[in-house]
Amino acid sequence: MNEIKTDRQEFYDRIGAHNMAPLWEVLHGLVTREPVSPVQPAVWHYDELRPLIMEAGTLITAREAERRVLILENPGMRGQSQITRSLYAGLQLILPGEVAPAHRHTQSALRFVIEGHGAFTAVNGERTVMSPGDFVITPSWTWHDHGNDSDAPMVWLDGLDIPLITMLDASFAEPANAEQQLVSRPEGDALKRFGNALFPVDWESQGRASPIFNYPYVRSRETLEALRRAEDPDPAQGWKLRYVNPANGDFAMPTIGTFLQLLPAGFATNPYRSSDATVFVVVEGSGETRIGNVVLPWRAHDVFVVPSWASHTHHAGPEAVLFSFSDRPVQQKLGLWREQRTA
Amino acid sequence: MNEIKTDRQEFYDRIGAHNMAPLWEVLHGLVTREPVSPVQPAVWHYDELRPLIMEAGTLITAREAERRVLILENPGMRGQSQITRSLYAGLQLILPGEVAPAHRHTQSALRFVIEGHGAFTAVNGERTVMSPGDFVITPSWTWHDHGNDSDAPMVWLDGLDIPLITMLDASFAEPANAEQQLVSRPEGDALKRFGNALFPVDWESQGRASPIFNYPYVRSRETLEALRRAEDPDPAQGWKLRYVNPANGDFAMPTIGTFLQLLPAGFATNPYRSSDATVFVVVEGSGETRIGNVVLPWRAHDVFVVPSWASHTHHAGPEAVLFSFSDRPVQQKLGLWREQRTA
Amino acid sequence: MNEIKTDRQEFYDRIGAHNMAPLWEVLHGLVTREPVSPVQPAVWHYDELRPLIMEAGTLITAREAERRVLILENPGMRGQSQITRSLYAGLQLILPGEVAPAHRHTQSALRFVIEGHGAFTAVNGERTVMSPGDFVITPSWTWHDHGNDSDAPMVWLDGLDIPLITMLDASFAEPANAEQQLVSRPEGDALKRFGNALFPVDWESQGRASPIFNYPYVRSRETLEALRRAEDPDPAQGWKLRYVNPANGDFAMPTIGTFLQLLPAGFATNPYRSSDATVFVVVEGSGETRIGNVVLPWRAHDVFVVPSWASHTHHAGPEAVLFSFSDRPVQQKLGLWREQRTA
Amino acid sequence: MNEIKTDRQEFYDRIGAHNMAPLWEVLHGLVTREPVSPVQPAVWHYDELRPLIMEAGTLITAREAERRVLILENPGMRGQSQITRSLYAGLQLILPGEVAPAHRHTQSALRFVIEGHGAFTAVNGERTVMSPGDFVITPSWTWHDHGNDSDAPMVWLDGLDIPLITMLDASFAEPANAEQQLVSRPEGDALKRFGNALFPVDWESQGRASPIFNYPYVRSRETLEALRRAEDPDPAQGWKLRYVNPANGDFAMPTIGTFLQLLPAGFATNPYRSSDATVFVVVEGSGETRIGNVVLPWRAHDVFVVPSWASHTHHAGPEAVLFSFSDRPVQQKLGLWREQRTA
Repeated sequence: MNEIKTDRQEFYDRIGAHNMAPLWEVLHGLVTREPVSPVQPAVWHYDELRPLIMEAGTLITAREAERRVLILENPGMRGQSQITRSLYAGLQLILPGEVAPAHRHTQSALRFVIEGHGAFTAVNGERTVMSPGDFVITPSWTWHDHGNDSDAPMVWLDGLDIPLITMLDASFAEPANAEQQLVSRPEGDALKRFGNALFPVDWESQGRASPIFNYPYVRSRETLEALRRAEDPDPAQGWKLRYVNPANGDFAMPTIGTFLQLLPAGFATNPYRSSDATVFVVVEGSGETRIGNVVLPWRAHDVFVVPSWASHTHHAGPEAVLFSFSDRPVQQKLGLWREQRTA
Repeated sequence: MNEIKTDRQEFYDRIGAHNMAPLWEVLHGLVTREPVSPVQPAVWHYDELRPLIMEAGTLITAREAERRVLILENPGMRGQSQITRSLYAGLQLILPGEVAPAHRHTQSALRFVIEGHGAFTAVNGERTVMSPGDFVITPSWTWHDHGNDSDAPMVWLDGLDIPLITMLDASFAEPANAEQQLVSRPEGDALKRFGNALFPVDWESQGRASPIFNYPYVRSRETLEALRRAEDPDPAQGWKLRYVNPANGDFAMPTIGTFLQLLPAGFATNPYRSSDATVFVVVEGSGETRIGNVVLPWRAHDVFVVPSWASHTHHAGPEAVLFSFSDRPVQQKLGLWREQRTA
Repeated sequence: MNEIKTDRQEFYDRIGAHNMAPLWEVLHGLVTREPVSPVQPAVWHYDELRPLIMEAGTLITAREAERRVLILENPGMRGQSQITRSLYAGLQLILPGEVAPAHRHTQSALRFVIEGHGAFTAVNGERTVMSPGDFVITPSWTWHDHGNDSDAPMVWLDGLDIPLITMLDASFAEPANAEQQLVSRPEGDALKRFGNALFPVDWESQGRASPIFNYPYVRSRETLEALRRAEDPDPAQGWKLRYVNPANGDFAMPTIGTFLQLLPAGFATNPYRSSDATVFVVVEGSGETRIGNVVLPWRAHDVFVVPSWASHTHHAGPEAVLFSFSDRPVQQKLGLWREQRTA
Repeated sequence: MNEIKTDRQEFYDRIGAHNMAPLWEVLHGLVTREPVSPVQPAVWHYDELRPLIMEAGTLITAREAERRVLILENPGMRGQSQITRSLYAGLQLILPGEVAPAHRHTQSALRFVIEGHGAFTAVNGERTVMSPGDFVITPSWTWHDHGNDSDAPMVWLDGLDIPLITMLDASFAEPANAEQQLVSRPEGDALKRFGNALFPVDWESQGRASPIFNYPYVRSRETLEALRRAEDPDPAQGWKLRYVNPANGDFAMPTIGTFLQLLPAGFATNPYRSSDATVFVVVEGSGETRIGNVVLPWRAHDVFVVPSWASHTHHAGPEAVLFSFSDRPVQQKLGLWREQRTA
């Protein structure tokens, strides 16, 4: 046995010199029966983070930082700027009067507003003023900048597909030649032009992302209520919505799926798992999520993450609303996504 | 020459006995250089029709008629229940307390409300209360009924693809076993569940039509205003919108395209033609449409029709809003649709 | 009752003056429970037709006729150049040395070769030489001409969507400025470039029709045999294939579906019906088709038609191969197509 | 400055305790102007590797190894079983009489045959016998096994999307309960059933991969010749084909794009780059590829890799044929793929 090992090791060394390695030594680590991931369940409590975020505002300007963001790093993958294997998340602070200068990149970004009123995101010549619970997108390769014309700080969660783009070696980025893009259309206009299921007759989508770039919370919340009136909650999900690109019925962004769900007071979901590791933001209420032996307690503004294929249950205290995002559109486009419910 | 004719005629008789005919005698009538149509430009003035519509209400009940509708027949094709070659249009009256009983058919139908408030259409277990300018659909093979719980008559325009379905020999219909379907969802709910670009996460479209079945005028009109603020009017169309199925970005119905356009006061469009004969309903304002030597004057509630490939211009008096519908989705799905603008 | 009739008739006259008519008098003829069609089952026996087709060759030249075709007219719709409500069929003769001059039109055409070897169809700068059983397409708005460089007559069946295009008022046509188009690519090349499931890397489909424009019988027949080896015959269809556009998996043409089926010797199918009236061409063998009380006997080269929703069975004598075509792609794109099998 | 650094570092330590990190310290490494990759250009010369591959055959059996493969590791990413960031490649040996036992996994695999005749791959109840130049796929989650009934070793290149699946945490795998799957269909049948642009009429694709699972070299080579006859070579690519799924016109596999290109003798391509790092296998001929200052000489059976966005030229000695694969379908589905040609 020992001798065989030695022979093999000697062979491995020789093939190694030719940039080769034996598959049989690593096959079961590469092609696993179920996902084997460094991603750990984790929660970030906003009341603990908020002072640190505000302190960041005193340490560096938005202009110097380009984006003043504290990355939320998965505890199982520290130092890699990832909250899951394919996704990045961070909390961005923009102070009154500040500007986050215009740039564009192939990475798609979502913003989910945590606190503050009146800061804006500008995309493709149009500004949208943001409020808590608003879901804002800056699609791949669109110019975008942010500013805060209000008198209070604004904090939002950034979600990007940075690790996915890195894995594809497809990162392209460009700074604008001006700090802020020219605004060529009325503020908040895209929602009215594209959010009412009527499109300009000759308009054709220029990309794969939704032409709506701000899904305001007031509309989303109203939709949750309509769903609640129309049907019983799903045992595993409560009432759950998917943000949609009305130009094709697909997800709002091609690489990141986004969801909003309502759990009635006291609701405990049935166990559920899916192959897309998911980041949750608590919008309203409080409760906890159980993943195996791990219990993640949460309340409004907290962020937590559930790994791929980890069976979990949510338990709402008072009525709760959860925003979430994952790489589900990528997995579905490639024929890989799975889910499992346990009654 | 005469002899040849005679020879040929004798041949035609002999092949005729075998259910055959010579193509060369009819080829240029079958495959024409441009559309050669019996469809004529025409206008129906609502102020002339309204007394007749109301008189119909005294002649026959909705129940006896099943649908109390006066068909708008193209003057070039009388007796054929067609407003264009592929489309049917009629004006339907429903009186207070009346019911148009539940049935379903493969023909797709649109309703565009002309006058009245408070009557309803029920589709798939849900009622929507209708108001002027609302665009309501009853998709192919969906149960639908109408009722009027208000204290005034309601009149709407019905648009159906009856001639198309007839040409395909694909008509199927079924009466319901009850006059009115059971209402299982809150009134007006579909718009909130599907009209805000968020869908229930596990919902999948059951057909090709929009899950929104009432596009209320208040939202459509607001969208026209947003378009007006965002861009200049198109020289041939003014500001023109297309009603969209947000589940796939296609038209709201697979066989009938629907549009809403705004012409500012005094606006005269450039000449335009397209291969889809189009039925217009005047929602607001007045003006006229010129098609060759024909001038069709119109004001609110009038209906007029422009034949396929007929170059035309619209001239608005005061600001005008036009609803229109055609078979454009069919032509586009089959790769046939054309349009032409003249500067 | 009489009086009411009279009142109503008087009303109908008055609304008639306004181009209106009462729906309730015609509703059940417009929206029928099942298809109600003038299309009749019918068969054309090639041995009876062939002398007449050849006689046509002495009466008129291909050049004078533009296309020397005997239209197959459904006996239920004589004088309308239709074999079903939406489709046209005819038998075309081209004699040695003749040319059918180049033109293009929005109508899509298929050719299914009945007899002869060595005539060609040219489409988009490429010629394909045709043999019996070959299925050749000339997609909408493509230049095409035919010629016969062989020393024997060739006869093929033409199938076009003429009635559909007429109903849509979407006929456009154009003669070429030369009798024959310039041939810019090697003969028979398209099949090799597009028929092997490899495409030029930067090629994009210019229309909705297949880039393969000749599906030779030798390949199609081989595919039938492969299907026979792989699975049992379908009780209602035998082994049945659908001609496919490999650029999108759809039918070979957007408006006309085409099929090839193999019935083993003595096979009797279970009853079957579908909402697409279907034209059959017998390629090999003989047998009969029963539609209600009607029995249509057929042998090689015969053409027969089964109306929409008419339940029918096929009974093969010796092994038989049937080519067929219908408007099924249109019905499927519009969500209308139905089929029913009876065990 | 130093003090600020210190302050910041102290802050970073404090936020690190909360699983947070400052974006501004890493932003330009995460979102790069152009792809910044550890992937290096590299070539593996088959004449050097072949003795080692054969030696592997004496060290371990296919049964013990499950798959006896020598992984080709990119020299810039040793120890990670990757040839590019998203793709895995290896050379698999199967000796006469051996079996590579049946299993299935979510990873998609391609085989490109380097040497040997007569070994088979079985997928979904059907075997295909393989020859040099054949391109064989085992789609995601399909049972597959390999065997060699010939009297000579067979070597093929395996290409899989292992790193992509790992990044998505979407690996699922399952061994079969028998070493070899039951063969339920005739050998080589899929190509005839699905490769001739006719499909069984009721067949519907069960996944996103091509129903053809062996694209034999004899057909692919013939297609290259047809392209050569029809058009001039592209200055940057020669004559280049894309393997196609005829059920939808997409790539043969949803995650891996595959190509075959012909460079005439002495042809030197113009510089070209694209955002998909690409693995090449030399099928015929010899030549070299220049990437910046790096020159990769190659001859038949060699494998080489070009990183993402690396401008390169190919120079053929005698006429050469190159097979290649990359993650281009993923990038295109997500709207990320770019290419650039320099005249």
